[in-house]
Amino acid sequence: MTADEMYALCAELFPINRSLTGEGVRATLDILKRECPILEIKEVKSGTQVMDWTIPKEWECEDAYIITPDGEKIADFKERNLHVLGYSVPVDKEFTLEEISEHLYSLSDQPEVIPYVTSYYKERFGWAITHRQREGLKEGSYRGVIKSRLFDGVLNYAECLIPGESDEEIFFTTYVCHPSMANNECSGPVLAAALIKYIQSLEHRRYSYRFVFAPETIGAITYLSRPASFGGEGSGLNNMEYMQRHVIAGFNLSCVGDDRDYSIIRSRYGDTLADKVLLNVLKYHTKDKFSDYPYLKRGSDERQYQAPGVDIPLVGFCRSKYHDFPEYHTSADDMDLVSPAGFEGSFKVMTECIRALEANRTYTLTCFGEPQLGKRGLVPTISSKETYRQTLHLKDMIAYCDGRNDLLGISEIIGASLDECATLAQKLKDAGLIKEIITK
Amino acid sequence: MTADEMYALCAELFPINRSLTGEGVRATLDILKRECPILEIKEVKSGTQVMDWTIPKEWECEDAYIITPDGEKIADFKERNLHVLGYSVPVDKEFTLEEISEHLYSLSDQPEVIPYVTSYYKERFGWAITHRQREGLKEGSYRGVIKSRLFDGVLNYAECLIPGESDEEIFFTTYVCHPSMANNECSGPVLAAALIKYIQSLEHRRYSYRFVFAPETIGAITYLSRPASFGGEGSGLNNMEYMQRHVIAGFNLSCVGDDRDYSIIRSRYGDTLADKVLLNVLKYHTKDKFSDYPYLKRGSDERQYQAPGVDIPLVGFCRSKYHDFPEYHTSADDMDLVSPAGFEGSFKVMTECIRALEANRTYTLTCFGEPQLGKRGLVPTISSKETYRQTLHLKDMIAYCDGRNDLLGISEIIGASLDECATLAQKLKDAGLIKEIITK
Amino acid sequence: MTADEMYALCAELFPINRSLTGEGVRATLDILKRECPILEIKEVKSGTQVMDWTIPKEWECEDAYIITPDGEKIADFKERNLHVLGYSVPVDKEFTLEEISEHLYSLSDQPEVIPYVTSYYKERFGWAITHRQREGLKEGSYRGVIKSRLFDGVLNYAECLIPGESDEEIFFTTYVCHPSMANNECSGPVLAAALIKYIQSLEHRRYSYRFVFAPETIGAITYLSRPASFGGEGSGLNNMEYMQRHVIAGFNLSCVGDDRDYSIIRSRYGDTLADKVLLNVLKYHTKDKFSDYPYLKRGSDERQYQAPGVDIPLVGFCRSKYHDFPEYHTSADDMDLVSPAGFEGSFKVMTECIRALEANRTYTLTCFGEPQLGKRGLVPTISSKETYRQTLHLKDMIAYCDGRNDLLGISEIIGASLDECATLAQKLKDAGLIKEIITK
Repeated sequence: MTADEMYALCAELFPINRSLTGEGVRATLDILKRECPILEIKEVKSGTQVMDWTIPKEWECEDAYIITPDGEKIADFKERNLHVLGYSVPVDKEFTLEEISEHLYSLSDQPEVIPYVTSYYKERFGWAITHRQREGLKEGSYRGVIKSRLFDGVLNYAECLIPGESDEEIFFTTYVCHPSMANNECSGPVLAAALIKYIQSLEHRRYSYRFVFAPETIGAITYLSRPASFGGEGSGLNNMEYMQRHVIAGFNLSCVGDDRDYSIIRSRYGDTLADKVLLNVLKYHTKDKFSDYPYLKRGSDERQYQAPGVDIPLVGFCRSKYHDFPEYHTSADDMDLVSPAGFEGSFKVMTECIRALEANRTYTLTCFGEPQLGKRGLVPTISSKETYRQTLHLKDMIAYCDGRNDLLGISEIIGASLDECATLAQKLKDAGLIKEIITK
Repeated sequence: MTADEMYALCAELFPINRSLTGEGVRATLDILKRECPILEIKEVKSGTQVMDWTIPKEWECEDAYIITPDGEKIADFKERNLHVLGYSVPVDKEFTLEEISEHLYSLSDQPEVIPYVTSYYKERFGWAITHRQREGLKEGSYRGVIKSRLFDGVLNYAECLIPGESDEEIFFTTYVCHPSMANNECSGPVLAAALIKYIQSLEHRRYSYRFVFAPETIGAITYLSRPASFGGEGSGLNNMEYMQRHVIAGFNLSCVGDDRDYSIIRSRYGDTLADKVLLNVLKYHTKDKFSDYPYLKRGSDERQYQAPGVDIPLVGFCRSKYHDFPEYHTSADDMDLVSPAGFEGSFKVMTECIRALEANRTYTLTCFGEPQLGKRGLVPTISSKETYRQTLHLKDMIAYCDGRNDLLGISEIIGASLDECATLAQKLKDAGLIKEIITK
Repeated sequence: MTADEMYALCAELFPINRSLTGEGVRATLDILKRECPILEIKEVKSGTQVMDWTIPKEWECEDAYIITPDGEKIADFKERNLHVLGYSVPVDKEFTLEEISEHLYSLSDQPEVIPYVTSYYKERFGWAITHRQREGLKEGSYRGVIKSRLFDGVLNYAECLIPGESDEEIFFTTYVCHPSMANNECSGPVLAAALIKYIQSLEHRRYSYRFVFAPETIGAITYLSRPASFGGEGSGLNNMEYMQRHVIAGFNLSCVGDDRDYSIIRSRYGDTLADKVLLNVLKYHTKDKFSDYPYLKRGSDERQYQAPGVDIPLVGFCRSKYHDFPEYHTSADDMDLVSPAGFEGSFKVMTECIRALEANRTYTLTCFGEPQLGKRGLVPTISSKETYRQTLHLKDMIAYCDGRNDLLGISEIIGASLDECATLAQKLKDAGLIKEIITK
């Protein structure tokens, strides 16, 4: 997908009123399946026990607003779906200003934006408005209306597996449960869709690629608890157990559409293959200008996939990290915050990670002492002060192709990007000077 | 004990003329036993071989002074017991100024204080005076008198064991062999006595607690070499061998009564449980304002308990560290240097260490993925930007309750004090969300 | 050898026209054998396959020069042997300025020096001149003459083994293949010769000492591939395999005659015994004023002995490191760049390394708790503030003689030089307080 196509898909997903469950999620997944027909949309019934949780009821919201004492309609859901407290129970009654104030949500330090607020696991109702608007409300009688319904339905998610030569998997996950926010909702699914198309277009895939699009938290937990799909059917394992045996690196995609600096949110101990690959790619791609967050700063589905005992080797990837940019979880996270260039950069970083993982191998030298590079045309045949440095990276590669380091490790030692190391390794392999060893 | 009670006990111990052996040690131990009747006072005969050492003779000093050519009595032992060189042999004769000068000790860089000097393992006699006084001495005949006696007697020490649920032990040691110095002598036994009373008052003790009050160096070595007491009787082990099997953390108490910054003197490799607990407590208690000394700066009975092959996991705990404060080993180390507040702070740090050790456990989460905290009332049920950080430490605890870290380790990772971690762990355990695992 | 003798030997070796093979190498080795009769000179025929390489032909150069259009003879080999491109094939013909320029080598950024240039593995001819001279050349007809011969001959190297108590070896290697350059050629063989004489003069040698003098790269590779000598005869092993089993530390000597700061070029992972010893010696010898280069900055025969799969534990030792000093590989690397003092310093560092390796052992204390040093006369018998620090290093030694550290490790921990540690260890051993343990 081009940068513009990614932005356009984001714009198409933006207006939908998503929640943990319901029509908004299904509409979103349908658009994604139109883009990536390989996606399979699944459902799990409300009330189903998943790990420590229970699948909640579906929430349907037809309308929500407040009529002020002056007869003005404010907090109009049809205008901005952020105006309603997510999962609000229905209400239609008169309130004093004091009474309705207890059901209003606003941000005093960001008075111009509507905050995003939900109450998934306790029955409440409420409206979110700007703090400016709240301050202008006067005494009198308010009519508060929410036409919503909570009922037994299903939780939906989508998944696919793009098979490769090996049943070892690279895993991508993103979420589909926030209403109209561009960066902290729509950008992740858009990037994931673009990556599915990219991976499908590869001539050769060493690894298999699994993608999951699910509501955050409850969706991830649901996914982990379901019987294993894609190769795990009939194994008696659930997805968690199957993925523990097959996933070598995973990435949670969130807030990947703006054009600020990139971020990694490390795995629990910061030392998985996913950490190493993303750090290496970001280091060379951004010349060290990126944010490196420890797991303590987690906030998306890293929390589930990296939970104790789950331990899928996964990192978070963002541009501006959730929680840390001012527009986060407000009406300011709109289509102006994201850009084609923002998507394009994230796409480049993720596809570099994929190429890095595909290329990463451990080699040993096939001869003792340095090989004679000159007779193979790999270095200039005249030795002088000037020619010395030309073949430095090639020679450094050779020096560390000792079976102790994969290409990632060599990249770190010799200070050359993994892309360059992979190219040099191919040269040396073609010349018969190194051979792959299987370290597992 | 209250801060004032600790200060008063220190004042009571201060005037006694202690040495490695003799009445001073016994008088000191008798007072401590009055405070802590659980203490048992032991004796070992002079001449007994202990490890590489031999128990020295008892030293008794009745009087010591010098009569100047003007007939003035100086270096009067009855006025300040520091005036006599510790373990001086008896003498009573006339000296020229030059002759007696060879037996005088003073500090040219601290001209107003009397230094503390001893000659335990070579027979000498001498007097310690201020450098100011020494400079005022004129030519003439001096009568030098020391009425002392060295004779076969005993070396004394006291010990106790406060039993707990387990026969694993926490160990405290302090020394009782210096004459009238307040911080670098009396403060340690006072704090140890206060800790005995505190530990006895605990409703529940997971661990057993061993306390030793002994002369420094020779007393510690003697203790290590004696047949094991308290559970080790009849085992054929000596105290060293028994303690190697039972002590999980130990603390040498010295110079704990002043009110300057705290100090830790690390174990030989700085990595025992005692190091970790004291560092953690000091870090949170002092907001990182404390001194962290390596084992190279040792000087008290860390030297024996952490000697190669002894290896009792023990650290030194001081406020101002011995050797490093100006009053050290001089007459300026008096009751003005210590204070009730100084004792109180040290007592708090040590009791926090005890609580930390008692609370320290390793847990694992009982479910996969994050548990649902909301339904258990452990977090607010409404999700917004504001509520996010409220439950951060609780969630961070959960994230690292993975069987790899004890609470100490989690405290270091998540940046919450061990006290807070222990409280949170109790909440999670009560909710059935974590369970203890035995890692040993 | 004295500093002056080393300088004089360097001056004797300087004028010889060395190359990878040929009379220059043999003349050099003959002089070295005159100095060190224990040396054995070996030869391997041109065309022999050695690892990934083939022994090249011998190169003989009788004369080389250019006659300018004005009839002036320039680039005169007989005047400076650097004027000819090393391994030039013969030529005698007329050139235009443009034609001959393609065969001229000079350095535009160092216009006053003749560069050292070779073409060992591709047939070429050429002359090296100063850039200043090149810029003064005018249009016209040039006669370029090189009277050289490439023919099947032999590659020569010299080696010796000075036996010690053990068949574990310390290894020194240096190269003999550059024409008239003083630091980056003659200094290494000179220092190696001085070390042979020094080691032979030692009354007692714990280790055996192997020395190799060979052409750089091809000579080292040849040496590694030859059937094992010196104890390895008939074993079926080659030198590489024998040395892998016997060498505990090795040093590549290069550029050791100038008087600038010392350099270490670390082994591949910077962690061998050779790294540790040389770092320790340089640290104390130079008060931390030396250059510590990682293996990435390698450039001499570290490249072969530390190649993957070869793994002889070896570091590079230089004063100014090759590649990094301005005179490197130019005519400015002459007898003015090196000095008696320069040689003397390098000799001291290397002999300290030898003493360190010979002295390095692992000890344990023979008693529990601190030994009583006073009764053995190892410390002053009077205890006061002043005497405390006098025996600090001795006591620190004792504290870490716990079987976990060799003397090198203790030196690092306690901050005393290995020389001092060895002296203290001897005292303690003589007193029966420590005993050696075999850790291997």
